[in-house]
Order: sequence, then C-alpha cells, then structure tokens
Amino acid sequence: NFSKTSRKFSSTSLKNDAFSPLDTFPRRHNGSSDAEIKVMLEAIGVKDMEELVLKAVPANIRSTESLALEEGLTESELMERLKSIVSKNKVYRSYIGMGYTNTIVPSVILRNILESPGWYTQYTPYQPEISQGRLESLLNFQTMVTDLTGMDLANASLLDEGTAAAEAMLISFSARKQKCNTFFVDEKCHPQTIACLKTRSEGFGINVIVGDALKYDFENQHKNDLAGVLVQYPATDGNINDYSDFSAKIHSLGGQVVCATDLMALTLLTPPGEWGADIAVGNSQRFGVPLGYGGPHAAFFSCKDRLKRRMPGRLVGVSRDASGNKAYRLSLQTREQHIRREKATSNICTAQALLANMAAMYAIYHGPEGVTAIARRIHNLTNTLAEEIKQMGYQIKNEAFFDTLNVHIEGGADDIIRKALTVNINFRRVDNNTVGITLDETVKKEDVLDIIQVFSKDSNKKSNLVLPDKPTIPQKFIRTSPYMQHRVFNSYHSETEILRYIYHLQSKDLSLAHSMIPLGSCTMKLNATTEMIPITWPEFANIHPFVPADQAEGYEVIIKELEHDLAVITGFDGISLQPNSGAQGEYTGLRIIRAYHKSRGDDKRNVCLIPVSAHGTNPASAAMAGMEVVPVKCENNGDLDMKDLELKATKYKDKLAAFMVTYPSTFGVFENGVVKACEIIHQNGGQVYMDGANLNAQIGLCTPAGIGADVCHLNLHKTFCIPHGGGGPGVGPVGVKSHLVPFLPGHPIVKTGGDKCIGPVSAAPFGSPDILPISWAYIKMMGSKGLTSATHLALLNANYMAVRLSNHYKILYVNQQGMCAHEFIIDVRPFQKTANIEAIDIAKRLQDYGFHSPTMSWPVANTLMIEPTESESKAELDRFCDAMISIREEIRSIEKGQQPKENNILKNSPHTIEMLTKTTWDKAYSREQAAFPLKYLKTHKFWPSVGRLDDAYGDINLICSCPPVEDYLEN
Amino acid sequence: NFSKTSRKFSSTSLKNDAFSPLDTFPRRHNGSSDAEIKVMLEAIGVKDMEELVLKAVPANIRSTESLALEEGLTESELMERLKSIVSKNKVYRSYIGMGYTNTIVPSVILRNILESPGWYTQYTPYQPEISQGRLESLLNFQTMVTDLTGMDLANASLLDEGTAAAEAMLISFSARKQKCNTFFVDEKCHPQTIACLKTRSEGFGINVIVGDALKYDFENQHKNDLAGVLVQYPATDGNINDYSDFSAKIHSLGGQVVCATDLMALTLLTPPGEWGADIAVGNSQRFGVPLGYGGPHAAFFSCKDRLKRRMPGRLVGVSRDASGNKAYRLSLQTREQHIRREKATSNICTAQALLANMAAMYAIYHGPEGVTAIARRIHNLTNTLAEEIKQMGYQIKNEAFFDTLNVHIEGGADDIIRKALTVNINFRRVDNNTVGITLDETVKKEDVLDIIQVFSKDSNKKSNLVLPDKPTIPQKFIRTSPYMQHRVFNSYHSETEILRYIYHLQSKDLSLAHSMIPLGSCTMKLNATTEMIPITWPEFANIHPFVPADQAEGYEVIIKELEHDLAVITGFDGISLQPNSGAQGEYTGLRIIRAYHKSRGDDKRNVCLIPVSAHGTNPASAAMAGMEVVPVKCENNGDLDMKDLELKATKYKDKLAAFMVTYPSTFGVFENGVVKACEIIHQNGGQVYMDGANLNAQIGLCTPAGIGADVCHLNLHKTFCIPHGGGGPGVGPVGVKSHLVPFLPGHPIVKTGGDKCIGPVSAAPFGSPDILPISWAYIKMMGSKGLTSATHLALLNANYMAVRLSNHYKILYVNQQGMCAHEFIIDVRPFQKTANIEAIDIAKRLQDYGFHSPTMSWPVANTLMIEPTESESKAELDRFCDAMISIREEIRSIEKGQQPKENNILKNSPHTIEMLTKTTWDKAYSREQAAFPLKYLKTHKFWPSVGRLDDAYGDINLICSCPPVEDYLEN
Ligand SMILES: Cc1ncc(COP(=O)(O)O)c(C=O)c1O
Ligand SMILES: Cc1ncc(COP(=O)(O)O)c(C=O)c1O
Ligand SMILES: O=C([O-])O
Repeated sequence: NFSKTSRKFSSTSLKNDAFSPLDTFPRRHNGSSDAEIKVMLEAIGVKDMEELVLKAVPANIRSTESLALEEGLTESELMERLKSIVSKNKVYRSYIGMGYTNTIVPSVILRNILESPGWYTQYTPYQPEISQGRLESLLNFQTMVTDLTGMDLANASLLDEGTAAAEAMLISFSARKQKCNTFFVDEKCHPQTIACLKTRSEGFGINVIVGDALKYDFENQHKNDLAGVLVQYPATDGNINDYSDFSAKIHSLGGQVVCATDLMALTLLTPPGEWGADIAVGNSQRFGVPLGYGGPHAAFFSCKDRLKRRMPGRLVGVSRDASGNKAYRLSLQTREQHIRREKATSNICTAQALLANMAAMYAIYHGPEGVTAIARRIHNLTNTLAEEIKQMGYQIKNEAFFDTLNVHIEGGADDIIRKALTVNINFRRVDNNTVGITLDETVKKEDVLDIIQVFSKDSNKKSNLVLPDKPTIPQKFIRTSPYMQHRVFNSYHSETEILRYIYHLQSKDLSLAHSMIPLGSCTMKLNATTEMIPITWPEFANIHPFVPADQAEGYEVIIKELEHDLAVITGFDGISLQPNSGAQGEYTGLRIIRAYHKSRGDDKRNVCLIPVSAHGTNPASAAMAGMEVVPVKCENNGDLDMKDLELKATKYKDKLAAFMVTYPSTFGVFENGVVKACEIIHQNGGQVYMDGANLNAQIGLCTPAGIGADVCHLNLHKTFCIPHGGGGPGVGPVGVKSHLVPFLPGHPIVKTGGDKCIGPVSAAPFGSPDILPISWAYIKMMGSKGLTSATHLALLNANYMAVRLSNHYKILYVNQQGMCAHEFIIDVRPFQKTANIEAIDIAKRLQDYGFHSPTMSWPVANTLMIEPTESESKAELDRFCDAMISIREEIRSIEKGQQPKENNILKNSPHTIEMLTKTTWDKAYSREQAAFPLKYLKTHKFWPSVGRLDDAYGDINLICSCPPVEDYLEN
Repeated sequence: NFSKTSRKFSSTSLKNDAFSPLDTFPRRHNGSSDAEIKVMLEAIGVKDMEELVLKAVPANIRSTESLALEEGLTESELMERLKSIVSKNKVYRSYIGMGYTNTIVPSVILRNILESPGWYTQYTPYQPEISQGRLESLLNFQTMVTDLTGMDLANASLLDEGTAAAEAMLISFSARKQKCNTFFVDEKCHPQTIACLKTRSEGFGINVIVGDALKYDFENQHKNDLAGVLVQYPATDGNINDYSDFSAKIHSLGGQVVCATDLMALTLLTPPGEWGADIAVGNSQRFGVPLGYGGPHAAFFSCKDRLKRRMPGRLVGVSRDASGNKAYRLSLQTREQHIRREKATSNICTAQALLANMAAMYAIYHGPEGVTAIARRIHNLTNTLAEEIKQMGYQIKNEAFFDTLNVHIEGGADDIIRKALTVNINFRRVDNNTVGITLDETVKKEDVLDIIQVFSKDSNKKSNLVLPDKPTIPQKFIRTSPYMQHRVFNSYHSETEILRYIYHLQSKDLSLAHSMIPLGSCTMKLNATTEMIPITWPEFANIHPFVPADQAEGYEVIIKELEHDLAVITGFDGISLQPNSGAQGEYTGLRIIRAYHKSRGDDKRNVCLIPVSAHGTNPASAAMAGMEVVPVKCENNGDLDMKDLELKATKYKDKLAAFMVTYPSTFGVFENGVVKACEIIHQNGGQVYMDGANLNAQIGLCTPAGIGADVCHLNLHKTFCIPHGGGGPGVGPVGVKSHLVPFLPGHPIVKTGGDKCIGPVSAAPFGSPDILPISWAYIKMMGSKGLTSATHLALLNANYMAVRLSNHYKILYVNQQGMCAHEFIIDVRPFQKTANIEAIDIAKRLQDYGFHSPTMSWPVANTLMIEPTESESKAELDRFCDAMISIREEIRSIEKGQQPKENNILKNSPHTIEMLTKTTWDKAYSREQAAFPLKYLKTHKFWPSVGRLDDAYGDINLICSCPPVEDYLEN
C-alpha cells in the first residue's frame, strides 16, 4: 500500500553502513539536505513527505508498489558499468554515407561547447537579453547555411534531414494557393528521407510519387495538382545531376523545388539557390558533429525570401534594444505553434541548437578557405579512388561525383562487403550488384589504399595514389559564387581566437551554471557531469547509424535497458526511442492511434479532443497527424470541464480518435477527474494520449498507464536529464500499452518497431542514440528510491515556493487540499490595472535579479508558471522568492505613485551596465536600486548584455543572417 | 647555413597538396595568418622573417641545422598515437600507499576545474582584482589544511610532500636563534621524504640523523644543536604513534616538531597542532586529485602562528579594497624570493595551485561529514581486513592504524606480491618479511575479498566481512575538535550548488580564455585542448608512482621520447624530468654542478656568479644549494658587464662553481657577449648554468648547449604549453652536457638518474608525469618546422608591439639593430615626475581595458615587461597596443593638468561596477571614460570584481583562512 512506498522516502543524506560506497548520486542530484527538507515541510504545514504526497496526489491513481528497478549505482560504479558496455561497440571505418559521414570534431569545440555546462545547460533563447551569445551563434549557423545553399535565409536548425524534407513538403502545399494533392520525390533521395516523407504525407492524404525526376512526365501527369518535388544534390548514389531546366519546368507548373543537399559538397558545387531550388534541406553533421549512431545532429532548412513567413522552426533575427543597440532575438514568434495551434503548418518546437552551434563554430574555425580545402581533399581522394577502381576493371555508375561512388560488381556486392568487414571497413550495400563508398575528411591515404585492397584480386596490390588530372565535376556544376565572407568566418582561425570567441559568447548567456531556471513545464533540472561524460567517448560518438548490428552491441544494451526502465516507470508495455522531441513524440503517438483505429476498420476516427489549456504542440501535432481538433473547456479552477468532455466525447462518439491530456495538468495540479476522463474516452471508442511533459511529478507515485493512458510521450530532455542545449537536442520517446505495441514506428534500413509499424518519424532508426546514455545513467544512478525521492522533492520545492510567495502574489490553481504538483502559476494580471505592469515586465526585471524568468503567459496569458525541480536547493528557492517579493514591493511603489507608470524600474528593465554608467540619469530610482536591489547581487550579479528587445522592430525588419560588418562596433 | 634554416619558415597557412591531412596544428597554435605576418614584418621594416632573425640573433650562436625532430603530426594523428601509447599502461589496484592513494575525483570538479581553460589557463594571482575567484579557492584550501592539521595557518600549496618536509627542516633552522646543525628524522617516515630531505640538507651541511624518534636519546646526544625533528603521523608503516610527550621534550631542547601527515586520517585523529607539532606537511592528493604516476598534486604546509613570517611559498590573505570591501590577495609578497634573493629561506615560486583548488573543492563538495564518512569507511574496511588477515594466522605489525597494515610473512613478502600481481593488485614490498597494504576510498567490499584471497591458502575462501567491534584507534588518538565548520564547507553539497560555486569563482578571474596575458618571462601561450585531453584519461591518471615498471610502459614511452626531443631542442646529452618547477630545476642544476666539482676533488668550488638582473629564484636557489652568491653588474644598456664578469671570475678562480645566466637576457635581448661570457667561466673552472625561462626565443634558432651552457632548466609550463593553472603545476626539467649526465638526480624507490646521481629533488621519480603528455604532444604536433615558426612569431610579435608602442613609450634595451627578442621592457619611470604615475597605476588601469598587466617592476623597478608569445593574433596585439596608447593619453591629461594628480582615472583604477553605479560621482572624468575608454570595451569588457587592493592593510592584519561568516555579505 502507499504508505509503505512513501515511508521509503529516501533521505538525501549519507548512508552510514560500514562498507557501502559513498559516491551515491541521489544526494548530489537532489538539491536540499534532510535538515532543509524538514524546514520546508514545516513551512508547508505537513508533517512529512508522506502527508505531502497524500494531499497532492489523488488516492485513485497512487501506485501501491515501488518502482521495480535496480538499486541505484554510485557514480564510479556507473562509469565502470558503462565502460564495459561501450566496449561492446566496434568502431570501424564507415564509408556508408547516406547523409552521415565521419568528421573531425575540433577538440576546442568539443570541449568548450559540447562538454561545457555553460553551453549545454542553456534553455531556448526566449529571453534574448540574457541569451545574446547563443543567438549570435545560431545566427552564424543561419548565415553559413544561407551562404552555402545560395538561399535568402535559413532557420536555426530542424531535427533531422528526413523531417526537414517533410517540413519542406508541407510548405510546398501551403505555398500553393490552388488546392493540390501530389508531391514528387526523386528515387535517388536517401531512402530514410523518402520514408520520413511518406510517413508525414499520410496524415494529410498527400499523394507521394517516387520516381526518376528527370524522366518523369510532369506536364501530362500532374499539370494541376503538383505541390512540389524533392531532389537530392548530390544524389544518394553520389551522382551530381543538373536540375536547372527541371526547376524551371516545375516552377512553370506552379510547384516548389526542394533540394536535399550536403553543405560540404556545396563549397565546390553551384548551390541549389542558384539553379532554381526554392528550399534546401540537409544534415549539418559532417561539420564537426559526432556521428553518434544517428544523432543528435542539426538539420538545416533554407529558402527563398518569399517563403520566409512559412518557414518552420526557430529563426534568429537582428533587432535592436531599448537603447537602439543591435540585439538578436527569435523572430516571428507568432508563427510558433503555441500561438497557431491547430492552424500551424509545423509542430516543431525543440530543435538541435547545441549541434547547430557546433557546426557553426566548425565553419568559423575553418573559414571559407578551410572548409573548401577539406572538401577539395575529400574530392581528390574520391577521384583518385575512382580511378584506381576503374583500373581494376569495375564500373563506376555515377559519372559526376563529389565524395560518393557507386561501384558496379555484377552479383558481387555482398562478397565485397564481407571482405571489407574483415579489415574493419563498412561500405553501403546498395543492391546485389552495387556497393556505395562515401569518403569524408577523416580518410587518409592509407585508408584509400585499404579500400583499393578490398577491391583488388591481388592481395599485395600496391598503389601510388596519383591524382588524376581529368576533372570529374563538370564545369557547369563548379561553384563560382563566394560564401562565408562575413567577418565572423574570417577571424577566429587560431585556437586562442576561437576559444575566446566561444567564451565571449558564453559569457553573455545565463545557464544552469548561474542560477535556477524555473521554467514551468520545462523541468530544468541538473544535467550531471557523470551522465554527460560518456557521450563524447569515441565508442559512442563514432558509430554510423547503419552499421551492422554486431558493431553496435553496446548501444543495443543501452537502448534495451532504457526502454525497459522507461516501461517500468510509465507502466507501459512498449517504448520507441525514435522521436527526436516532445512534439515528435506527440505526432508519433497520434499516428499510432490512427493506425490502431484503421487496423480495426475504424477509418473514420479522426477527432482529437484537446483541452484549451493544452500546450500548442498538442493541436499542432494533431493537425500534422491529419486529425480534426475539438477543444474541451476548462473550469475556472483550471480543472477539466468534465461535462464538456463528456458532451464532446459523446457527440463525436463515432469519429472520436483520441483525447490528449497533460498530467499533472498544464496548470500544475494533479486533477482528480483524470481517471474518469480516461474512462469517458474509452467508453466512446477513443484512445487516451498523455503529454508526458509533467512526468517529473509522477515518477514513483503514479504511472501514465495506471491512470488510463494508452500512449504517452516522455521528454528525456526534461524528466530524464538530457540538457536543453539552448533549444535542443531532445528525445521524445513514446510508451504504449500492449494493443499499440505492433504499431511502434519502423525504419527502412534498420528494423525497429512492431509488425504493423507506422513509418519512421525520424531519419535515424533510434533517433538520437548518442544522448541516450544520459537518461540511462540518470535512472541507473538514482535507482527506484532515488527517482521517487526526486519526485517528492519536486513537489516539495514547488509547494514550498508557492507558500512563500502566496503572501505576496495570488497563486492560481491548487487542489482541494491547497496543494500544487511540481509547478504552479502566479497571477500578475491585477497589476495591469494597479500599476500598468505585465508579466513581461516582471520577467525582464527578474533578469536584474540574476534569474531567468519562469514560463511567461502560458498556459494562462499574463501569468508566470514556476517549476523549481528537485535539483534546486532551499537556498536557491529562497533567493528566487526573495527576488519575487522584492519585485512585488517595487510594483507597490508604482501603485503608490512613488514611481511613474512608465519609465519605472520594471519598465526599464533589464538594466545593462551601459545604461547604468551613462553620465545622465533621469530615473525616479537610483542606479543602485536598479542594479543591486538585494544584497546578494553585490557578489552574485549576472548582467544582461543588451537592454529590453524591441520585438516589433525585429519582425518588421526581418534580418536573419549576420549583419554587415559596418554594423559592428569597431572590433 | 642559416639562411637555409630560415627559409624554412613554415607558413601558418593550409598545406595544399592533394591528400595531406588538414588538421595540422601549427596554424592553430600560432596566432597570425600569413597576411598579418606580412603586415607586421613591414611595420618593423624587415623584408622577411629571415631578416628579422638575422637582426635579432647574434651570428655566432645561430644554428646551422634545422631541428632533428619528426614532422609534425596532425591533431587526429596525435590522438591516435597517444591512444596506442597509453594502452601500454596497466591500471591495477594499487594498495602501495606511501603518501599516494587512489581517490574518486568528483566528475563535476574534474570537468569544470581540471578540464576547464577558465581555470587552467589562469596565471598566479598577482593581480588580485581580477583573480578573486582562485584567491578565494586557495583560501579555502588554506582553511581546510589549517583546520585538519589543527594549526594556525597554512599556505596555498607546495610542490610535494618531500620538498615540503625539506622546507620545514630549513625553517626549523631559521627559527632557532642559536646556531645548530642537526635535524632528526624518524625512520618511519616515507623513504622518498627522507631522501628529499637528505638532498636538501647537503647544500647546508646539515647533519640529518635518521632513527627511531621515540627511542632516541636527544637529551644526551643533541642538547644544543637540534633544530628539529620530523615524524610521520600515521607513520609509513601505518602505525599511529603518540608524540605528545615527545614533542614537549623536543621543545624543551629548543627544536621544532615537524609532522608529515595525511589529511584523510586527520578527520579521525587528534591533529598534530593539538599534540604539539609546530609544522605539518603532507600531500593533499587523496582529496580528489588523480595519482598520475606521481604528480602533479598539491602538498600542504601549515604551522603555528609564531612561524608565519618564515613560511615558504604563497599565502593568500584577506584584505580590503579601495572602497573598504573585503578582498583577497597574496600576502607578505616581500617574502617572495624575487625580493629576498640570496637571503631567501626558500626558492619556491610556481607551486600547485590548480591541484590545491581541486582538493579544496573536494572538501567543499563532501563537507566535514562527507570526508569523515569517507575516512571512517576506509578505516572500517582496513579494520575488517586486519581481522581477516589475523584470523588466517598472519601478524599485523602495527597495532594502531588508520588505513595501512604492515603484514608479517616470514620470508614470504615476494611470494605474496607476485600472487597479488596475478589478480592485478599491487602491494608495498616493505622488506623480505613484510607487505604493506593501504586502502583508499575507491576500495569496495569485493576488493577487500580479493585481498583476503591473496593471503588465503584456500583458493575458495569465502568471507562475510563483518566489522569487528573492537576499536583499533586508541581513545587518546580520537579527534574531538571540529573542523571545516565554515559556511563554505557546508553549503555546496549538491552538484548544482558546487557547479555554480565553481562557475561563480571562475567568473571573477581573467584567464587566457579572455585576452592575452602579456607577462614578460612567463610565456603565456596557448594550452591547446588536444594537448590537455589525454591527462584525464584513466590510463594516465590512475597509476601509482611506485608500480612495477611493466605497468607504466606507456609513461615510459612518453618520458623517453620527451627527454629525447628536449635534448634535441636544447642540444644537451641528458635530461631529467624530475624537478617540479623552474626554481627546482635551478636547484637541481646547481646541485649537479656541485656534485661534479666534488667528484673531481674540487670541493671548494661554491661561488656562484649571478647578474644583478637575474630572477630572484636564481640567487635563492644558489643559496639553497649552499653556494655563495656573487653579483655581476650590468651595463646601462642592459648587457652583462663583461669587465665585471671577468673580474669576478678571475677573483674567485679557485672557488668558482657556476655562473647563472638567462638567455635571451631577462631584459629580453639576445646579448652578443654570451658566448664570450661562457668561455670566461669555463676558463676559470666554472660551469655555466642557463636559466631557460626564455627558451621560447631560442627553439630552432640556437641552443643552450650550442651557446656554451653546461646545464639549463626548461619550463615546460612556459615554453612547452603546460598551463600555469593559476600558480602551478609546473615542470622544470634540466638538460645537461655529457660530463654532467652521471649526476642527474636519482630516487630511492624507482631507478632514475646517472650512476653518480645526486639525491632526489622531488618525491616522485619523474616529478609530475601526468602533465608530460602536454609537452610531448606540443612537440609532436609542431614538429621541427612548427616549433621554429613559433619562435619566429614570438620574435615578430614582440618586435611588432615594440615598434607600435615606441611612438608612445620609451622601449628599454634593444640590441644594436634595434631589435628585442621575444619580450621587451617599456619604461614608465618618467611619469612619476610628470604625472605622479607608477607602473602599478598603469597595471591596474589595464584591467579596465580588459587586460592582465605585463610583468611589473621586474627585472627593472617601475617598468613593464611585455611578452606576447606566438599564440596571440595581430588583432589581439593591436588591441593591447591601442589600450596602452590610450592610457598614455590618459597620463598626458594628468600631465596637462586636465586631471588631478590624485583621484584621477589611473589612480582610481581598476573601476568596479559598484563604483561606477554609485549615485554620487565626484571624479574629473566621466563614468563612461572610466568604463569604456575604447569602443571594443562596449562588447568585450572584463570586470574586476573588487577595487584596488590595500596591500599594507593586508600585511599588517594577516588573516589567512576564510573570514568568519559575519563578514560575508548576506547571500
Ligand atoms: C506540455 C508540453 N508539451 C509539449 C512540449 C513540446 O516538447 P518539445 O519542445 O520537446 O517538442 C512542451 C515543451 O515545452 C510542453 O511543455
Ligand atoms: C627568469 C625566471 N627564472 C626562474 C623562474 C622560476 O620558475 P618557477 O616559477 O617555475 O619556479 C621564473 C618564473 O617566472 C623566471 O621568469
Ligand atoms: O616571480 C615570478 O614568477 O616572476
């Protein structure tokens, strides 16, 4: 029974039996000591953790058993275990290509970005004044992509090449005013890209035709219903095709030309933007991001100016701050799905910021000359290899190539591939008769000699490798336009310079290394070093996603064990780790539900009930999955309106596909009605989809499956410690009950999913395997007790803060016992009238206090939602509460007329050093009040690097690549 | 001939042959591009690098051959090679003890201090206003040591336990007014400590007696000539002895009691300060610093208040800044050897700051309860093991123990040790009949079972490991006093909290990650990531210094190859890597010279000629080596006064031991007379000792041996890229000509050195092997050409800056062609009269410009010595020159009376944000002028965290541990 579980609340203090090892992890992950916990419990007015849980969590969902997981490992035990697991991975030389190639990650970037908490613990830069560093870096990424693809602008990354192509397909439809139904995909695109595109097309009933684009008779077949085409350049077989006339033809039919491409090749080839493509997509992985068995890497998306307002994902733009200084920000926020909801054309939210930053830094470190030299060398080696292979009597199928050869070996592909494996080399098996070889920057002369040896019948063949002097890239493809001419790509080529640039940017950005980031719904908890260390081990980092299974046995252990542990934690029967973000998880889950209904002949079930309080990705994902969204009301107290739910469920009885619910609710409350709600849905033939964003409040106390959900996505980047990386990477696995297991997503190259699987939702079979060890390690080190203690503390911390702040602010939405779950909302709407103050003013003023704002105006406009997580200490919670209380007093001084309604300490916030050191000071408050309103700030101040952003200016004057040099301050 | 060498100037640009790999290193290490180099050459007025070298370096010393080293490896080739080398090391479980034990390095500390350029690239905190972070951290170290040893104060680290004991011995002599000659060492001290102490005693003719301290008849034997005693607590055999009565006896004889001890044991044992010891020394390695085959680790030194002004090494103290705020600084700077010269009682300069910081953070992360729990667990395991071993019929020789057992096995020690090796376990071989076993925090129950198995005759022996309930630490030894009660040790026990604390401290400190640190004579060049990555690989990190040679074969390769390469670079015939700092290298070299003379019967040769311009460690080291220092004059132009040299050399003909010379000179000039000077010395029977601090100007152009030196120390922490770590670690190898090779230092445990070796100068046989891969990697990646190009650029950069600054400042000391070497001095003495401005004012004002000051007032009072190194880019050199020129204009405004002679922009510098945001502003200049005198500062400002330090206050009110909590600002 429950009280047994609860009595197991594991203290954060040291074990003291005589021999047990002491480097236990839960006391490092959790923020407070036993003594502090006691004080917080007292403040809330409960006698122990058990009482807190009893009051916060409804009885009918509480688990009666503790989690059936192993005891937590200590940090050093974990490292030992992981080393033995990773040693099962075999790092071969992979020439498989298909959008993934080996790369040399510059050590200085590896260590100071990918391995640096100052970068990886950042949140998405929604607070631009304390995020100028990564905004600049993402703008560099956009500029690099724009330049290399020859387009007008690019976004700040997408999840992978496959889904980026799918996004491009959808834009082709939205861009065509006329209704149309067909999208054409060239058969020489990467197979996983074609598969992702097909998956996405299904929700919309799009007719995807796969064929030979250059031969297809578009004029006669699709005069009026062609939205666009996708071609790959260079193609998956390595060939470089001329699509200029083709593009003109497609345009004349009203379609868009989407080009999947390769940034490295584009340093040498005429970019798609110059031969007529409208959109370019691809993977930036080979710009210094480890393979990681498939991810995470940053996909890119660039397009022509006229498509810019349709572009999916985040877009950094140049604007100005309150003093008129240049400042960066996320542009066109109105496009984001949390505003557009079911009208959104994309559900992308978390993307791949950290990896985009790495790729941008790679470009900056090498500069245009450097990357061109790398590309040229790769091409030289490929060219030389081609010549040698031809001399041995083989035919190279693709005439024009950059780095990839398709070698014809009548009936002999498998033999060659087997022979290659004996010398630790992986080729691509294209078909019975064809072997693919893709070279990359890590390839050395000796590697090429080894490849030649595989093809040679003479086992002692010697070769000199002479560069053939006949050109292989036809003149018409040779790039003539310059790229990466901006100063940022031409200044930091020594290690000292790039190190300082990385540090300079980092110094502008607030991260978890500075102070708590209490973003409701985002769960900004500790990303522990021991969890992070393994991801850059070469045995994890340097594995191609399509290697034979026996080379990835270490990964298999991690994947299997993580799936198992997540199933235990959620109560589900099957897990897929393929989705790369929460929103992708939603999409996957809904597609699984659709497939399930269809498998039972329930084709009509396409209505999705979604509470009005839901996160914007919910309706957006439902729309992507081809569902009709029907909103469900909420009560004034935030609870689901059960009457309305019942009404809608019955009304759409025959069409009801799913109900999406977040639990605890997006308002931060364990609602009583949740079990009932699930019953209603099931009674009406629907399936229950749970948005697992708030799982951090459930672990060990209840389970999504136990509550009644059929599917749920988890956010490993929230609940399970994958860092947010400034806006990605993420992993959004789905868990499902047994009846849905057969439908888990498949993959065209590596078998995944069930026997009635839906198509792949990510380009790589297991999504982003390289970061799975993080979540795996977290679960292993916390163990059953540790995980439950974290949940306890998440609840305790939120309720403690709510109690402290309730004397100063109105707390919205608590349950009947007055308890919130792991987060809570404070209402600042009254201040609009009393002091002309809005949530944004408080958010910006919090920066002056050294804090990142809580979630602003979601789920309720003009409120702030606070989620402390278990990792914050009581001292930090108090510091934040002190700041909020101090701000309340500042608001009071406006209410009292001691400060004007404009030009006051909140409206002018955040205050930069530049503002505060101006000779003239004409404010109703002092410089010291502005800068150091509380004593701790004298020693612990974090300074915003620009003043408040001018959002309107930036959206009107959209500039999404590095501003011209003249705009920069001298040096 | 030379021009051949010079034409080989290797461009920093990309190679462009078709296939060669592109991740070459020299262009990353060197700061400027070919185009920038061209501009700089033009500015200097030379047509190419060759002409520059011809003008700067005297013809008679220039090498005619290029360096006989391998071609440079690329970064990825280096990594591959190093991985294959390190795989030769075997990581066994080492229970050897002797002051070195395995430890669990908390990942968060490993990654965010040891692996963080923000920490490891810092310089010694001589500029306190931009070093408050590491000063606070070192103060934490001092406080921890003070508390645990029960002393009144502690310093900020020494090089190792052996030399710390030697320093303590010397203080015992200086503290005793009466002349005396004897120092007694208990035979149960670690053998390497005894050996280091003996080495050090020889220079002074100290009579060191080794014996059983508790049985020795001091009263009758040494009534009047006993300076002190050294005991070990717990002793090297693990026994805990009661020294309270003994201490009283020694005190009554006027001697000091020095106690070598173990911080971990002291959490449980009555600390030496409480039973009467006057000085405590030891190694803090087991507080979370990797073994690293012997180093680097931080030794500690603490003592009673009355000895404080005799304490060697750096001492952090609490003082206040210009606004009266609490601020930390290095105290008692007047004690530093650059002031006391030959009257110094120690030559310690570079110490072990980075490792001291790690140890302090370990203590902070665990807190007093945590470290006590660790100690108790180690003791429990040892206690249990002892019981099991006894039950098997063996005798434990030491009755009272903490973590170490000496097991008696009549004639069977070797058998047991062999058996242990078969299961990857190392014990200590004490003698034929005795095996030593020391446990540590990494030991698990299973490890203890494995140990038991080794001793068991029954190969299937099972044991339950029951903790015996009889106490093994006698009551009188049980510690009752509290320790580490300060808030800093009781606040940061969660990973989030310690991470923020580490970042908070780091954010106050300027490092190479921010801007150039142009310290003359310190060579603050790039510490490249690829060089740094290997040092935390477990196969380097986790090796005990006294393992059998076959477990350290990877290290052997590194050591041999590095010795070889350094010999090639310097022209010497033998190298010892044992000395842990430049000063230790000097000491070693001089001791070798003495031994050489003695071996030829030249006992009387003990005069050391040292130019007045020499670094303070030179005379201090000579004094340590028991030499008589005779100064040699310099000319007005900075050159050696050859007449005076000849005079002194002839005068002391019969007593002449050595001449110490720095080359290029400490004034930054390649002096013409150097060859002649060496000849004069040799003619008079002396040996030439070269201080290699300035070797960065020589590599590839000339060699110390070629110039005429017999011995030279190198600073791997200057010329060869080991980072300064905020004041250490360092490595100061010596190179010698063949006649001196037999005298290279030996070691009592592991064979090193020649057949007439002097005693060890460090506790570990190879000094600090864990950081040798850094220098090894640097040389391997640069190769012959790369190393020479670095020297070229070091000369170019210095001469370029000198030319730019010469229009604004007087440049002291250039050669007849107007050239400096790799550094130069600017004279600011005239401003004393014209504007009341001193070097220190310029140094502090430079902080406002975001720069660390050049070397101040050395070698010439009231001047600044600038050394840019090859790693700085032209852009950075220009930025620094712009700052210096702008400051010159500020001085002019004082000269012109536009600003007062006090309370002006220089005197008030550095300006903190707190100063600049005060409501009242009563200066003759604006806030903006103070903060942003140049435009780049608007975006690239580094802020000092306190105002100018009040040095006098701090020396008078010496406080050297964390100030009481009340003094802290409310957090
Ligand atoms: C409730 C909820 N659902 C879905 C999402 C989307 O997750 P992701 O950003 O991983 O796509 C979020 C993100 O914050 C969320 O809070
Ligand atoms: C010329 C010279 N000699 C000796 C030393 C002492 O070296 P270390 O600090 O490594 O002991 C220095 C240090 O800066 C120096 O500049
Ligand atoms: O004392 C010096 O390090 O120069």
